[in-house]
Amino acid sequence: MSLAAVSSAPAIPADLAQQVAAALAEDVGSGDLTAALIPPTKTGRATVITREPTLVCGMPYVTETFRQLGGGATVSWSATEGEAAVANQPLFRLEGNARAMLTGERTALNFLQLLCATAAAAHAYAAELEGTGCRLLDTRKTIPGLRTAQKYAVRVGGGHNHRIGLFDGVLIKENHIMAAGSITAAVSAAKHRSGVGVPVEVEVESLEQLREAIDAGADIAMLDNFSLSGMREGVALNASRGKTLKIEASGGIEMGSIREIAATGVDFISVGGITKHVRAVDLSMRFEWEAG
Amino acid sequence: MSLAAVSSAPAIPADLAQQVAAALAEDVGSGDLTAALIPPTKTGRATVITREPTLVCGMPYVTETFRQLGGGATVSWSATEGEAAVANQPLFRLEGNARAMLTGERTALNFLQLLCATAAAAHAYAAELEGTGCRLLDTRKTIPGLRTAQKYAVRVGGGHNHRIGLFDGVLIKENHIMAAGSITAAVSAAKHRSGVGVPVEVEVESLEQLREAIDAGADIAMLDNFSLSGMREGVALNASRGKTLKIEASGGIEMGSIREIAATGVDFISVGGITKHVRAVDLSMRFEWEAG
Amino acid sequence: MSLAAVSSAPAIPADLAQQVAAALAEDVGSGDLTAALIPPTKTGRATVITREPTLVCGMPYVTETFRQLGGGATVSWSATEGEAAVANQPLFRLEGNARAMLTGERTALNFLQLLCATAAAAHAYAAELEGTGCRLLDTRKTIPGLRTAQKYAVRVGGGHNHRIGLFDGVLIKENHIMAAGSITAAVSAAKHRSGVGVPVEVEVESLEQLREAIDAGADIAMLDNFSLSGMREGVALNASRGKTLKIEASGGIEMGSIREIAATGVDFISVGGITKHVRAVDLSMRFEWEAG
Amino acid sequence: MSLAAVSSAPAIPADLAQQVAAALAEDVGSGDLTAALIPPTKTGRATVITREPTLVCGMPYVTETFRQLGGGATVSWSATEGEAAVANQPLFRLEGNARAMLTGERTALNFLQLLCATAAAAHAYAAELEGTGCRLLDTRKTIPGLRTAQKYAVRVGGGHNHRIGLFDGVLIKENHIMAAGSITAAVSAAKHRSGVGVPVEVEVESLEQLREAIDAGADIAMLDNFSLSGMREGVALNASRGKTLKIEASGGIEMGSIREIAATGVDFISVGGITKHVRAVDLSMRFEWEAG
Amino acid sequence: MSLAAVSSAPAIPADLAQQVAAALAEDVGSGDLTAALIPPTKTGRATVITREPTLVCGMPYVTETFRQLGGGATVSWSATEGEAAVANQPLFRLEGNARAMLTGERTALNFLQLLCATAAAAHAYAAELEGTGCRLLDTRKTIPGLRTAQKYAVRVGGGHNHRIGLFDGVLIKENHIMAAGSITAAVSAAKHRSGVGVPVEVEVESLEQLREAIDAGADIAMLDNFSLSGMREGVALNASRGKTLKIEASGGIEMGSIREIAATGVDFISVGGITKHVRAVDLSMRFEWEAG
Amino acid sequence: MSLAAVSSAPAIPADLAQQVAAALAEDVGSGDLTAALIPPTKTGRATVITREPTLVCGMPYVTETFRQLGGGATVSWSATEGEAAVANQPLFRLEGNARAMLTGERTALNFLQLLCATAAAAHAYAAELEGTGCRLLDTRKTIPGLRTAQKYAVRVGGGHNHRIGLFDGVLIKENHIMAAGSITAAVSAAKHRSGVGVPVEVEVESLEQLREAIDAGADIAMLDNFSLSGMREGVALNASRGKTLKIEASGGIEMGSIREIAATGVDFISVGGITKHVRAVDLSMRFEWEAG
Repeated sequence: MSLAAVSSAPAIPADLAQQVAAALAEDVGSGDLTAALIPPTKTGRATVITREPTLVCGMPYVTETFRQLGGGATVSWSATEGEAAVANQPLFRLEGNARAMLTGERTALNFLQLLCATAAAAHAYAAELEGTGCRLLDTRKTIPGLRTAQKYAVRVGGGHNHRIGLFDGVLIKENHIMAAGSITAAVSAAKHRSGVGVPVEVEVESLEQLREAIDAGADIAMLDNFSLSGMREGVALNASRGKTLKIEASGGIEMGSIREIAATGVDFISVGGITKHVRAVDLSMRFEWEAG
Repeated sequence: MSLAAVSSAPAIPADLAQQVAAALAEDVGSGDLTAALIPPTKTGRATVITREPTLVCGMPYVTETFRQLGGGATVSWSATEGEAAVANQPLFRLEGNARAMLTGERTALNFLQLLCATAAAAHAYAAELEGTGCRLLDTRKTIPGLRTAQKYAVRVGGGHNHRIGLFDGVLIKENHIMAAGSITAAVSAAKHRSGVGVPVEVEVESLEQLREAIDAGADIAMLDNFSLSGMREGVALNASRGKTLKIEASGGIEMGSIREIAATGVDFISVGGITKHVRAVDLSMRFEWEAG
Repeated sequence: MSLAAVSSAPAIPADLAQQVAAALAEDVGSGDLTAALIPPTKTGRATVITREPTLVCGMPYVTETFRQLGGGATVSWSATEGEAAVANQPLFRLEGNARAMLTGERTALNFLQLLCATAAAAHAYAAELEGTGCRLLDTRKTIPGLRTAQKYAVRVGGGHNHRIGLFDGVLIKENHIMAAGSITAAVSAAKHRSGVGVPVEVEVESLEQLREAIDAGADIAMLDNFSLSGMREGVALNASRGKTLKIEASGGIEMGSIREIAATGVDFISVGGITKHVRAVDLSMRFEWEAG
Repeated sequence: MSLAAVSSAPAIPADLAQQVAAALAEDVGSGDLTAALIPPTKTGRATVITREPTLVCGMPYVTETFRQLGGGATVSWSATEGEAAVANQPLFRLEGNARAMLTGERTALNFLQLLCATAAAAHAYAAELEGTGCRLLDTRKTIPGLRTAQKYAVRVGGGHNHRIGLFDGVLIKENHIMAAGSITAAVSAAKHRSGVGVPVEVEVESLEQLREAIDAGADIAMLDNFSLSGMREGVALNASRGKTLKIEASGGIEMGSIREIAATGVDFISVGGITKHVRAVDLSMRFEWEAG
Repeated sequence: MSLAAVSSAPAIPADLAQQVAAALAEDVGSGDLTAALIPPTKTGRATVITREPTLVCGMPYVTETFRQLGGGATVSWSATEGEAAVANQPLFRLEGNARAMLTGERTALNFLQLLCATAAAAHAYAAELEGTGCRLLDTRKTIPGLRTAQKYAVRVGGGHNHRIGLFDGVLIKENHIMAAGSITAAVSAAKHRSGVGVPVEVEVESLEQLREAIDAGADIAMLDNFSLSGMREGVALNASRGKTLKIEASGGIEMGSIREIAATGVDFISVGGITKHVRAVDLSMRFEWEAG
Repeated sequence: MSLAAVSSAPAIPADLAQQVAAALAEDVGSGDLTAALIPPTKTGRATVITREPTLVCGMPYVTETFRQLGGGATVSWSATEGEAAVANQPLFRLEGNARAMLTGERTALNFLQLLCATAAAAHAYAAELEGTGCRLLDTRKTIPGLRTAQKYAVRVGGGHNHRIGLFDGVLIKENHIMAAGSITAAVSAAKHRSGVGVPVEVEVESLEQLREAIDAGADIAMLDNFSLSGMREGVALNASRGKTLKIEASGGIEMGSIREIAATGVDFISVGGITKHVRAVDLSMRFEWEAG
């Protein structure tokens, strides 16, 4: 993993190299039969362009793909991570060994088309929230094996990460409440047992439960499928008690309704769709070979 | 990997267990903080249901998830792999250790919602081709790390797999033709070098090129972005020369046009969208705990 | 990983099985030359006892060791995770294949002697804090490769986990402050970029810096090597501003001084020594073979 | 693994790179949230110094840590492996990408503080034996996952390695003797079955057993918890029979008694404490950033 | 994996780096005890020569071995992949760190002696077929863990690869025929279910079965242990039906008989012996050290 | 790895499960296309027989193959590890899920045919030495990735293991002697630096060098390509100096000459050919399916 390869800010996952290796292994297997038709010392150049507008995301994955392939195909970026790209915009140039370029093309683009898509989806929702003080969150509804990559793309797109996994945040749901006896008991146990600063969130289904979560000292309350007026009442209740927790709206939220929800005063809106759905961005690689 | 866990036919990928392990690792990490609120010996039951119609796919991935977690949560299926499911249909029951059930829920559903989606997408396209003799193919435009899982889902959905990766099929494109000097030379080299029975396909951009591919002895020709009339001419040309190769239509094909394309007489239609896009299926897990 | 194997509460790390496999591989290598002197079907029993008082920790690691070895050596525990054990107390019995028991003995005890030691160290410090409202934290100063295992042992011992790694908490130090321009700018950037609920902590070296951290909205301030009176002033300052953040005392803290530090009113005391130092607990395995 | 990075002699473990990768993965996870506050192209310098006297050990682990992180942070050593360092002595300078330096700091120091500690412990015991002709041995009581790293540190510290694991030496204990019928039978079977030159050691609990081990042709006898006079008698017995084996003293040996034990004439003294206990060395990294 | 390291054409397996890493790990383990006798900065040169005639194969494996070892030992080839080498011919020179050269020698030569042997065996059989139009095939009877490396060597030697594994070709045998009910049903099911272009082969034991395989539309028929006259009849039968499939002769074929078999007109002859047997080529490494 | 699965004595390698997993992965890949023609719940039985005489070796590898495949195909052995088998002798029966049996067949047999071959080769050489007091040794000339498996087979065949790798024995050759200055210096350094009991061997090319090795206290001397009379003189020289080391004959030794060499009185004869060459044993699996 090359930390310096990224020109923009978000933290790069430690498992990047491992994800790229797995993707190359599943594609290349016992060898690229078609690239073997190209003389092994042949060199060339190629340019990758967008075929539709998107948000650029995934640069370190592309760079790592060609680094692992060896053979001396090097990547030069003309875009920056997180930049809004128009259709037909050049993103990067590849230069070097022709076999390596052909062998790595699909793996590199498969990462790029997915991560641009996730970042662009996050950005579209986040843009709706601009100026509202409400933030967009992702969820644990992600593509298996690409959790950290997609969470990275959400950050690139201007969204914020909810917990990465089961290990870095507590989310108390109905079953945990039943097992503990009450919201109060569950929050108290969670506060007692979890690491310092680990946020304790409670999923609530009524104002009654919200009140108990506030009094129990929870850090966040997730309003599960509340109506708009229910959300407003929840926000008011929280304010009347000193606004000691943050409120997250969750459940079947789409582009059309997100701004209205933000207007209720909730602190966060979480949207599973930005990571569980993928509408891959259309990209194209154009080659220029040297003669001979 | 348990071969017997699948009640329907397609071959199960050897890397299934590895993919499940990676998905569990990224979600559970240093431990499920919230499940730790549940007494470790508590048991329970849960049912997973669909919330929208889909095609059932991913059963061995779900079973493997709970097997790896240990703790004795067992899975009983009421659906069969490849079955069309309606909304609100129960798919499987979980029974056993409550912690294991809660910890594994999201990983299991993340696989299931993606693989059902891919299988359903494949099935939707394949259904359009019913009775035409033309077959639906997937591509190498897949989610990095899930190539074999998605190819499996395409088979469950009634589609057919194009090559799995760069290692099990030759696809000669413009660059390879330039390097070899001509389609004829490229096909000849490919036939000479590749394994027995490895299909040699040529991407052609004109009838002229198609004619050369036929004469060179290619097994398949991919008509890249041909018009409907161009496809018809291609099919006729191939027939006039003894139909020694198969014809694949490719390039930006959508649901609305696929039947019309099939009517041109092409043998295969390949659609990148069934694997590169994912519209995750809505699923829900409902728990029933034992008292105490 | 068997979730049900633990009779006490803390969450079990997902990489447990991988850590056990690595430990077995490094010890067994090309085969246990001495165990090969035992007839392969011979069975026996053994008991593991403590040779000094400790806190029981590591049960799932022991169980997993013999599970991976196969051969049918099963583990029966008479202790429970987190229990205070006296000297010469039986912890578990092994029963089954003699070769497997002999081959697994050292690996199992190496985990147990280390994790008991870490849990006991955490417990000793935590006991000093009993009744003070101040909590014991661990740090990232851990044994390479055993981060999650040691963090688990700290929880078993009654301590609390500071962040697991660089990914689940922000800790702003001098360099980050310099890069951002000020504490205020650094906290603001961290809040803006990090995931929801991710705690933002600032290491401060003066009351001046503490004031800035409070005003910037940090969640925790780490008082780095403050005097006792400095800590008291810090606690008072925080209280005067509405106690919006938690205060952590850090830096060279030992058993002799911890209670005095807690009396200053700080919320947390972090001690690197509980995980970076290891004083392995003395354990002994006694075998009883069946005749013949 | 870079063999050339070590300026001193001991052989470097083949799993070094794997251990470093595991340590980075557990610390960095989904990304270093705090380093993300630093501009990605910022560069700087830092110096690591000792805060207490120690023996320098672990240089290849530190170098490998920053190599794997990429980003161009390079390590320049002013110490040499195995050198005795005083307090406040500079060990190495880091130069290059600031993010990489901050992200790798803790992992590098966690290796260094542990391996220096193990090497220093070995050195302290070995120094006691100086001039006696008796050698210090380590045991298999090591930190799980770091067997080869700790055995390397023992060599750096002037100790000698007992067998690495169960695969490269035979150590016949009570159970093996019972299974074989006698020490004679067990040694004979071991000699017959094990590889050429594989040392066959017998743990004996009496002079009677020692005599049998000598006559059986064992290579080493371990005197288990013998008194000083018992050890002297054992050494004399061995001498009277032509000194065909080496004698190892073992069992609860501490600094205070080791010289006295060596004076009995035993060939080796093995001490579990040098690897099972760890008293991490205090180290400190000081940064100097470039302005802007 | 460095694609550019190969001066000849066949596609390089993606798991090359992994195979080299495994081989180094099993040989180097906790460290090369003997190389530790060499000063760590000492440099030198060495030459590897053949001691018997062979076919050069395995260059990328050798290069990767020394790349992974680090230390700056570089490889310069005077041979090319696939070249026929005479006895005592220099293959490559090593230059650089002496420890790295000594540590890597055996691993590099173990790959080279095996892959040259496999390539040479393939070449010997393939030479017998020169001018016949019949091609040599390998099988799945390979050394466990080296499937892709051996298949690569077969290509280097002028043979052709039968399917790589169970995933890229269908081979219907007696059991599958019984399960499907008939050859016709089995071929039809295979065609229906497998990926596009996946060759469907049927193992037949009589002309009757061959006829059914032809009519069912199989791509290849494997004549299992047919007599020469049986093969001739099979070829004639196939010709009389338009030669719609290819015929493979298989079963206990040796050098002495292969040309005669080719003369029957079969398209392929598969020989398990070229990969399941290994007659390692004799190679030798000669060192020249710099003085001092 | 199941230790209990072996009915005979040699120690089983810890990486057995990993080697089996790698072999299954390379063969099964994205799924067994042909087994998918068999109904998933179909069961059956099969018997594996020898087709030529051999020595049975590899039982735990076969058992592990079907264990990993799941699906309930169980293995029952009628042979024992290390037993001499005649042609057409049944070795084991498989019973259970038909798909699992078909999918695992080739991987299981690839291990078995190789390990039987290695064990049989070792046995053939070892038999020549019967009654001579001289022992057969293997070398580090092994198949990459199968070092421990082949060393295990040598033990099963009645041979003895030379060092497993570079980590468990010192073998001083010409280059090390030059670097150290003399045999005496090299042996002294090796004795000083290596672990206790690690055998120090010197490769000698003259009686002069042998004398120096004896005087230096080496444990073994390897006579490199000595004549028979040279070997006799070496043995006599060693005897005249108290036979303090063992003598190993090495270099191009074949079946025809081994007994004569043993008669010179050398202690060991090492033969690279038993592991670097493989003449796979001919095995056959016969299936019996249940009707329907």
